[in-house]
Amino acid sequence: MTTAELVEQIHKKKSFLCVGLDVDLERIPTYLLSEEDPIFSFNKAIIDATHKFCVAYKPNIAFYEANGLEGWKALEKTVNYIHKEYPEIFTIADAKRGDIGNTSRMYAKTFLKDLGFDSITVAPYMGKDSVEPFLEFQNRHTILLALTSNEGAFDFQTQKVGDKELYKKVLETSKTWKNSENLMYVVGATKAEFLADIRKIIPNSFLLVPGVGAQGGKLEDVCKYGMTKDVGLLVNSSRKIIYASESSNFAEIAGAKAEVLQKQMAEELKQL
Amino acid sequence: MTTAELVEQIHKKKSFLCVGLDVDLERIPTYLLSEEDPIFSFNKAIIDATHKFCVAYKPNIAFYEANGLEGWKALEKTVNYIHKEYPEIFTIADAKRGDIGNTSRMYAKTFLKDLGFDSITVAPYMGKDSVEPFLEFQNRHTILLALTSNEGAFDFQTQKVGDKELYKKVLETSKTWKNSENLMYVVGATKAEFLADIRKIIPNSFLLVPGVGAQGGKLEDVCKYGMTKDVGLLVNSSRKIIYASESSNFAEIAGAKAEVLQKQMAEELKQL
Repeated sequence: MTTAELVEQIHKKKSFLCVGLDVDLERIPTYLLSEEDPIFSFNKAIIDATHKFCVAYKPNIAFYEANGLEGWKALEKTVNYIHKEYPEIFTIADAKRGDIGNTSRMYAKTFLKDLGFDSITVAPYMGKDSVEPFLEFQNRHTILLALTSNEGAFDFQTQKVGDKELYKKVLETSKTWKNSENLMYVVGATKAEFLADIRKIIPNSFLLVPGVGAQGGKLEDVCKYGMTKDVGLLVNSSRKIIYASESSNFAEIAGAKAEVLQKQMAEELKQL
Repeated sequence: MTTAELVEQIHKKKSFLCVGLDVDLERIPTYLLSEEDPIFSFNKAIIDATHKFCVAYKPNIAFYEANGLEGWKALEKTVNYIHKEYPEIFTIADAKRGDIGNTSRMYAKTFLKDLGFDSITVAPYMGKDSVEPFLEFQNRHTILLALTSNEGAFDFQTQKVGDKELYKKVLETSKTWKNSENLMYVVGATKAEFLADIRKIIPNSFLLVPGVGAQGGKLEDVCKYGMTKDVGLLVNSSRKIIYASESSNFAEIAGAKAEVLQKQMAEELKQL
């Protein structure tokens, strides 16, 4: 998917919501466990109930790998289902990979070609040659970790490297990499006030913003400091939506939760 | 496996060789492709031929994921085979994972419990709460990326954070984390002279050293600057061993290549 197509969808749906599909067998309604593929059954129900209110889905790969072969099967089925039924929706493999060149090439092929995700999250620690293999794919996007929403972000990411914080150094350096137009960035909402500075370095890039809701960040602040003329934001919510209820109408309730966020987003989009 | 057991094996085999099982279907002997599970067939032959000369195997997970379900099956079979046939051998899941706490917990369970690896490589960018879930496992080891062997290591890892390079900051900070005794570190051999400084920060920790051979680092230098009284080194070689030949006796030739390295290591161990 091109960035322009993503922006078009955002305007059409009046939403820049990404729903995180972090499926934990211990948290889904227990009656689903007797189904042949509980993970996919859960995802399908959530997707059918929320697709009108969101523009992206983000399965976190850890949750699928944790279920071994069954998990991989469910992941494949989930991404195929989204692309077939809702081809307008942007898909993100939340994998946080990154390795030396020939290895990153393998990961890139797996997620961006074989599984067909529109994008993948990648960690920057190993530098240029660990990220560029992901950037080679046309109309695919590499979402680089810049400033994450967890406490550990302060261990290294916000440490000063020369006159600027490491995450700013990552942003600046990544702009010099080949096919850098295919970059997006992870920037946590719990540090929304940092977004103004970030926008000075990457004025137009899309940001994937976790940490709204569950982790305490505010949507208004994210939009105030981070929105661009082409929106430039995908705001993720996972647990607050998909685990809103454990009852048999969990999907309906998830849909309602997603709609609440979509309505807030529609308000924010009016400022454009 | 405990560190003491690993050290014992190193002395017994006079080797601190780790063989990287980075199996690429495009590089294995073509006649194997007609077998039911070419990846496992290749690994089994390599393992049977090299196990006498090495103390660790390190499958790089990217190469397995690239083959989808079949790849995961082959990975499971490979680690089970090693633990059953050669239980004295240390296993490393080269996964370079790292995510927020609850997600890292999933990855840790997958690799250290379900698949039963003795250790996993982890990226430090997201800090303390992204690494500690891996450290909770008893007699399991978290091998943190410190200074990698690729060119991109100079993008961020060697940048000064305050008065020291980022990778040194990572080493120092990681020592303060809970269960830090379960940490080992990735330090590339292409920068062997950096090892002296690294040993000032982590005098006793085991280092996993890639980049000897294919990437140009010298074994003598690694030992000169990095060896401790308890050895403290696992030196990895992947492609130079497993792809030494494409003929039907590829495993035998891989064994011979591993033996050459083992003999060099036996010489180095004499200095202890």
